[in-house]
Parts: sequence; C-alpha cells; structure tokens
Amino acid sequence: MAALVDNVPNVNNNAAILESGNESNGVIQALLTDQYQITMAYAYWKSSKQDCRAVFDLFFRKNPFRGEFTIFAGLGECLKFLKGFKFTDSDIVYLRTVLPPSIEVEFLDYLKSLDCSRIELYAIPEGSVVFPREPLLRIEGPLPLVQLLETTLLNLVNYASLVATNAARFRLAAGPNKQLLEFGLRRAQGPDGGLSASKYSYMGGFDGTSNVLAGKLFNIPLKGTNAHSLIMAFSRFDDLKKKMIQPKDKSKECVDLAAISLTYLTKVCKLFNITATHQGELAAFIAFALAFPQSFLILVDTYDVLKSGIANFCAVALALNEVGYQSVGIRIDSGDLAYQSVKIRDTFKTVGNEFGLPWFKDQTIVASNDINEDTLLSLKQQGNSIDAFGIGTHLVTCQRQPALGCVFKLVQIDDTPRIKLSHDIEKVTLPGRKQIFRLYGADGFAIADLMAQVHEPSPALHEEVLCRHPFEELTRVNVQPSRVEHLHKIFMKDGQICQPLPTLTEIRAYVQHGIRSIRPDIKRELNPTPYKVSVSSNLYNFLHDLWQESLPIGLLR
Amino acid sequence: MAALVDNVPNVNNNAAILESGNESNGVIQALLTDQYQITMAYAYWKSSKQDCRAVFDLFFRKNPFRGEFTIFAGLGECLKFLKGFKFTDSDIVYLRTVLPPSIEVEFLDYLKSLDCSRIELYAIPEGSVVFPREPLLRIEGPLPLVQLLETTLLNLVNYASLVATNAARFRLAAGPNKQLLEFGLRRAQGPDGGLSASKYSYMGGFDGTSNVLAGKLFNIPLKGTNAHSLIMAFSRFDDLKKKMIQPKDKSKECVDLAAISLTYLTKVCKLFNITATHQGELAAFIAFALAFPQSFLILVDTYDVLKSGIANFCAVALALNEVGYQSVGIRIDSGDLAYQSVKIRDTFKTVGNEFGLPWFKDQTIVASNDINEDTLLSLKQQGNSIDAFGIGTHLVTCQRQPALGCVFKLVQIDDTPRIKLSHDIEKVTLPGRKQIFRLYGADGFAIADLMAQVHEPSPALHEEVLCRHPFEELTRVNVQPSRVEHLHKIFMKDGQICQPLPTLTEIRAYVQHGIRSIRPDIKRELNPTPYKVSVSSNLYNFLHDLWQESLPIGLLR
Repeated sequence: MAALVDNVPNVNNNAAILESGNESNGVIQALLTDQYQITMAYAYWKSSKQDCRAVFDLFFRKNPFRGEFTIFAGLGECLKFLKGFKFTDSDIVYLRTVLPPSIEVEFLDYLKSLDCSRIELYAIPEGSVVFPREPLLRIEGPLPLVQLLETTLLNLVNYASLVATNAARFRLAAGPNKQLLEFGLRRAQGPDGGLSASKYSYMGGFDGTSNVLAGKLFNIPLKGTNAHSLIMAFSRFDDLKKKMIQPKDKSKECVDLAAISLTYLTKVCKLFNITATHQGELAAFIAFALAFPQSFLILVDTYDVLKSGIANFCAVALALNEVGYQSVGIRIDSGDLAYQSVKIRDTFKTVGNEFGLPWFKDQTIVASNDINEDTLLSLKQQGNSIDAFGIGTHLVTCQRQPALGCVFKLVQIDDTPRIKLSHDIEKVTLPGRKQIFRLYGADGFAIADLMAQVHEPSPALHEEVLCRHPFEELTRVNVQPSRVEHLHKIFMKDGQICQPLPTLTEIRAYVQHGIRSIRPDIKRELNPTPYKVSVSSNLYNFLHDLWQESLPIGLLR
Repeated sequence: MAALVDNVPNVNNNAAILESGNESNGVIQALLTDQYQITMAYAYWKSSKQDCRAVFDLFFRKNPFRGEFTIFAGLGECLKFLKGFKFTDSDIVYLRTVLPPSIEVEFLDYLKSLDCSRIELYAIPEGSVVFPREPLLRIEGPLPLVQLLETTLLNLVNYASLVATNAARFRLAAGPNKQLLEFGLRRAQGPDGGLSASKYSYMGGFDGTSNVLAGKLFNIPLKGTNAHSLIMAFSRFDDLKKKMIQPKDKSKECVDLAAISLTYLTKVCKLFNITATHQGELAAFIAFALAFPQSFLILVDTYDVLKSGIANFCAVALALNEVGYQSVGIRIDSGDLAYQSVKIRDTFKTVGNEFGLPWFKDQTIVASNDINEDTLLSLKQQGNSIDAFGIGTHLVTCQRQPALGCVFKLVQIDDTPRIKLSHDIEKVTLPGRKQIFRLYGADGFAIADLMAQVHEPSPALHEEVLCRHPFEELTRVNVQPSRVEHLHKIFMKDGQICQPLPTLTEIRAYVQHGIRSIRPDIKRELNPTPYKVSVSSNLYNFLHDLWQESLPIGLLR
C-alpha cells in the first residue's frame, strides 16, 4: 500500500524538536490535586506522622471495555511529575487563602520544603499488558507527601492506560495489515485530552495522527487527507484559477493539468457510463493535485462517491500519471464503507486494466465516519477493500467506557500492613509490599500472574508453584513455568529516575510484543476468558490472617 | 446548611492569582490542529485563493444526553486562542520536515505571516442556552486562515459545551437546594480534561471543585472532605499521638480532646445500643478534628456507617462542641445513600435532642460514589436527607455521551453562498451569513429561535412573524413575540476582542438565567419536547433555491 500524505520528521537532525519533546504539560504540577489531599496532609503533619513511611499501591479493579486485559500507560508522565514536584511560592500564597485561618504557618513551610527526594517508586514497565489488582505503581515515602501525589498520579495513569488499551483493541479488531490513523483532536476532552489521545493511541498500536502538535511533541507520524470544505470551496470549474503543472521530469515544459484531466474524464465517464460529474469537485481535485502531485489523496464523497467523486479522482490521477506522478488514493467518509470500498477497488482495477497501469488497483482506500471497535469487527467480517481507517471520537473519548477506575490505596505504614475491608470483596485490598511474577508456559504464552510478598523468592523454572485465588479458598492451581518475568522494576530512588526510559516507539513495539504473549481467548472481543491473577500461599495466608484480625467478630445474644 | 471545608479565595487582594487566571493553557497554539488543515491551506494558497473571504459556521446537529437543550461554552478560550494565533519559528521548522519537499517555501513565509488581524467573529454569548443548527460562532476571514482555525475552535467548544450542559442537567436533576461538588480530577481525560471539567462544571451550575489548581486558576470555591486512607492510617487508638486542643475561647487552658471524645462515645454507644466502634477510626477522627476544629467534616463509611462511623463522629463532634467548636458534618461514599442519609439525619436529631444541641440535626450530609443524572433523579424521588453531592467520573467524562459533535462548515466565499448537500437532510447546511433571533412569549418563556439572513430586519414586537422549519415545507407557525433577543454579537473585529468578557461567575449566573427562560417540558429528562429552531421565509426560499440549483436533476431513459 502506498503511503498516505505523511512524513516522519527526522528529529535526530533537529535539536529544537527533540527538546520540545521533553516538555511536560504546564498544568501537571503539585497543585493539580484534590483539596482533601492537602487537608489530610495537614492532619498527618499535625499528628506528627510526617515521617511515617507509607506504601501505596495504584491499581484498577476491572479491565475496561468488557475486556480481559489492559495496557498500562502514563508511567513516563508520572516520573516527570515526581521529578519536578514542588510547591511554588505562588501556590503557598494561594493555599494560605483557601485553608482555614487556623492552619499553623509551619505547615506551609513544610509544604514548601517538600520534594520527591525521599520517594521510591516501583512500577510495571510502561506498555505492559496488565490485569486487575496488580500494583501498576508501588510508591513509598513520607505519608503526607505520598498522599499529596495520589490525584495527579491517578489522573496521569487513568486516561493514558484507557486510551492505550482502546487503541490496542482497535488494532486487534482491524488486524495487523490495516493502517489505523487517529483523527480525534476536534472531539477530544480538551486540548490536552487531544494530545494525550494522540500519544497513547500511537503507543497502543495506531500508525499515525492528524494532530500536528502531537507530531511535533512526540515524534508521531502525521497523517491526513482533506475535508469537505476544500471541495466546497470550488463550486464551478471556473473557480480553478491555476492549471499548469511542472512534470516530474524537470526537463519537460509545464502542461495544463486541467485540460488533460478533462480529456481523461470523458474516457472514464464513457467507461463507467456516467453522464456528468460535479465540475466544482473536479476543480477542487485538480487544485489539490497541483498542490500535492506526489501525494494526491482526496475525499470523494462530497456529492456522489461512485457517480462523481471516483470518476473525477480517476481522471485527475490519470492526468497526473501522464506527467510522471503516481496518485495515492481516496477517502470515503459516509455511506456503506464495506460496499463502497469493494466497488471502488473494482473501479480501480478496471481503470488500471483499461489504461495499462498495474499499480492503479492498489490505490489506498481510507475510510472514516464514526468508526468504533464493533464497526471494525463488522467490516472485517463483511469483507472490504479498505486499507486505512481514520478514527476519532470513539477512540479518543473511549465511548464504550470513558473512564478507567484506577485507585490508590494505603497498604503499609512503617512496619504495619494495612488492609481496606469492605462488604464488597472486590474492594478488599491486598496488604503489604508485593511483587508480581508473570509465569509463561512452554508455548510462550503467559499462564498466570503471581503476586507475592517482596521477601519471597522468585518461582523456580520448571518447578511447581502454587497459585491461589486471593479470595476463593478452593480456586488454586500449580504452575510449572518455562519462563518467569519479574514485572516490578524500581523506577525512582531518592527522587532520581533510575531506569533508562524507553522512547515512545520502543514502548509501542513493547505493547505489541506483550499482546502477542497473551492467549487469543483472553483477547477476543466477545466473552473473553479472564486471565489468572493469583497470590502465593504466603501472601494468601498473610492476607487472610490480617483480614480475620481486623474484622471484629459480631456478637449475637 | 453549614459550609463544607472551603474558603473562597479573596483574589481581589491577590494580584498574583488574578494574573494566573489569565494564563492560557500552553498547548492551545496554532499547531494544535489537524494536518489536513495545513495541506488544505496550501492548496488554497497554491490556487491563489488566499484572499478569498470565507465565512464558516460552527454548530452542532443534535443536543447531547438525549436532551433538548445545550449550554454553549468555550468562547472565552476561543477568543484567547485567536488573539494569540501565530506560528512560531520552531513550528515552521517542524512543518518543513513533515510537509512534502515539493511545498513552495513562500507558503511557509505566508504561514509565518498569519495572524487574526483580518478575522471577524460573531458569536452567541458564552453560557447561553442553544439549539441544533444555530451558528454558535460565525467566523469570517481569509479562506486558508479560517480553515487553519477549525480544529482548535472545535476542540475548545466541544468539550466545554458538553461539560457545561452536563453540569446544568445535574443541577436540574438535583434541584436548586443541594450543593453540587465536582470531584472528578482523578478520572478526567488528562490533566487539562480535569481542569476544563472543573471550570465548565462550575459554569454549568456546580458550587465548587476539589481541584486545587482549578481553584487557583479560575477562582472556583474549593470543596473537599477526606479519603479512606486518612482513616486507615490509624489502626489502633494508640496511633493517636497528639490529643490536646486549645478551646475556642483562647483564655481557656488546652484540654484532652481524646479523653472527652471517649467519654461522649460511651454515652452515644449507650444511646444507640452499640457494643464498640472501630478505635482506629475514632483515632483518625480525633486527629482530623484537632487539625480542623472549625470545619470538622469526615468520611464515616470506612468500617460500618451506622455502627461505627456515625457513633465515632457524634462522639468527636460533641467533644468539639464542649470546647466551643461546631462540627460541620459527614460524608458517605458507599451503600444505599438515600436510606443511610435518612438514618443519619435521625441519629443527628436524636443526639441533638439528647444533648440539647438544636443545631446538631442540621449537620451536613455529603454523598458520593459514582453518582450520575439518573442517580440524582432517583434519590430525589426516593426522598433523602443529603445536603451535598460529590460527583466525579460521570460528570467529567460525560459517560452518557462523551463527545459533542460540533462541526465547522463553509457557508460563503466572497459573495457566493455555499451549501453542503447530503442524502441525509440532517447534514444539509444552511448557506450564507445568518443571524438568530430568540422570540419570547408574554409568559417570559422563549417560544422559538428564528434564523434569518443578516440583512433582514429584526422581527417587530407584538407583530406576527412566520417561523418555518428549514426542511419541512408545511411545518410553520406565526409567532407574535413579546420580546426579541438578538443572539449574535460581534466578539472580534480586525483581530481585536470587541466585547467586554464576563467573569466565570457572571457566566455561571447567566446560564441559570437562560435555563429559567426555557419551558420545563423542554428541560425534562424523559422525552423532552424539542425546541423550535426555525428559519425566516426569506432564508427558507434562499436555502431551497440554492439547493435546487446545486443538485443536478437526474435523467431517466
């Protein structure tokens, strides 16, 4: 398939762009938090708990989109936030105006002194396939400080992971050979919602974005075609003021592309038994071809796809061919996409045969118009000749489920593990510092994840290890792993980032690598099999002992 | 109802904060657009159309949330964007790397020279109640420039209007006397999604936000309580290290709040026949009361609302009362909110009677936990004693419909009107420059909106004016207005903002004012009546003549 109108910027030659890629969004700052984090921090400080070492887990309870897997994203942004965490003088001035006047002024000095130099962060690498209850982040540090970080970390992980997961699902639905283009900026939830969507869609498996700023900031390939307004800007053939084109062979004289196009249009109309096409549309196509002779791709559904748009496109494409340029393709944005794409491919074949141009049948067909995961699956099932999908609203707003419910729970203070009890077992937390092992079978697929206390040794290769359901006593299985992966890595120690951070392109490849290691039945759209997230015997006993101890026994009398 | 833990910042005394309120988000810039806007701009430029004067309308086709009205928001941000519109040198360097090499370098100079000094913007004032097809913005200027503005303007209006409308609907569902607090930052679509949500929820009728940065930037009242982690940070009574409090009367000696609370706890437990409450929870409550004696409001559902949380709260509140402080209330975040709130109110009454404290029955009850519009309506129907709702996910991600479909359509170039045809009548555009009149009846309610060509005179008071459906020939009605409002105002001329811009608080009041002018049957949640959006006879004829002229007549033979 020919490339769309695009060009990957060569950032290595461009220091200015590389620098801008490292900029964090200005609104990601210490004050981007809930007010109650600050009041709680004050209560801890007032109770002399400011040096208690707290351990919090950040995790979700349910995979999004009725699915059974999630892609973890947002870690890079979290690390940038932690590294720069600091209340400014103006923040302190503001806080003084909104906190009760009884607040001790020394607390504001304490806030001003805070940074992440006493923070340790363990995390699963960004782009990993993850599952419910697994601590995506385990963050340790002074209790009031870690409390203050909660909201921002949740904000940075929730939407990033949601969009990356959505994009990965769209990629699974479309199959590996279709181009997926993110066109969602105009419908995104705010300007930064649009930027994040572009970044994390690309991470999750999209091929490019229409968002120019995202291209610049994150080095994502830019993709795009044109809109109906371009076509509508030409209402008659006379609206075309310039007509001459320099053939690709620079030694040749300029020729009249409009005149050549008209000649071909007569032939094409005769070939397909068409009376007349829209002449404003033809003028717009010629104008666009004059502007982009080497990457001519145009929207053909403004008036009538088969009776006007495609005939006009073929005429201009054939004219371009005569002066040495190979056109790229068309976009359709309405109607029955599967049916039209097949008809259009037939037209391309007929034209290719008629004019002796074997490449013509492979012109790119881009489809857009409110496409979601279900549409992609349905189009695959119907059969279609679409090469690339432009996807906006459903991708970036995650229409099927617009929020991921990550939570941030206290699991230990100093040496004491904490458990959050609930009548709803789903909401009971796993206490203490935990590590996670992913156990792989001989076929290369992941069999189960095993959470254990941090002091437990790694399961041995080819030896049986008991994997228990955290709450169902009799749900357990022995696994004999062929490979064991330790999911947590330390990413921040003493406030310093202590892992090399992969590039966006590397994370994107890592996502696909991870998805391939998950069995197909776990990834399917309809009734997927839940993946096993288990705990070690040791962690099971620890959890249940603490639970029993914390839950007072009722008294009947 | 007593105030929550909050404090409106007195920004008039604080120049630093006022200034920061004028900052635009750094990502709102010329490059925050779709790539195809730039390729189309090039095609226009290449076709010598750079001085064509284009008129575009920004409008939506369908009200969101199965409703029949929308609140228009985002205009202030659009104006800031237009005022600052400029490609930087680094943008041009980047664009050169991503556009095809055949692009003429003079085009990049042209881009660099662009600003909004030739732009005129007509708009409906921010915060207005608006309806489908109405141009929220009518923007006029050089064709390539206005084309370049499309994506950013759509992005700034779409989410802002969606959230403001959602908030206004939540306000209608809750009724005027409940406090509505936005708690959505952690689940918002990105950091800026969170900030925009806070701003436009407040505009739409919420009373405050938990988002501290939004409080600082937009001068929105901050609200909040505390989280389960505060309660879990105290597992035993011994975890309470500080116990002394200075009574409100500063001449008195410090006393042991913990000891007084324990005394009251015994009495409260006896009163309600409770064996024992959770002692870690009690310790946490005392710690929080020591930190915030004047604004004590606490989360009571960590262990058991009625058997532990409320009893502990009452004990600490009574202890605080003894040293001169009046507690504020409680929050519940799980379970049956209606039932619990009624039970809790009963408890407050009983305690108030028992201890001779008439104000005690009026303690604030805050409820949260995945609340949406349906929950609010259902709670109202069931009856409840909740004073304030904390609302997050459903509000900020607009779960019922996470995107508003505003579009940006070309309606005129120079003196020629443009019409976008479509098999789908809903998608046919209204050509040419239009104005909108809102016609009010004698009862003060709006009867209909009337779109007319810009040169038409305003309908006269108390005289009949024919209002026609734009597409259904026989759907028409005469209206005799008691008041006529001209909805469009000019907001930008020659690149300068030419209307005084209201403050967020003023727009918030304007929203409620507008909503009151709409009949209740149009605002109801179930099967609301559509509001009449009509066109003048003149515009009707103009539209249909142009339509006939543009649509070629088929030929049967």
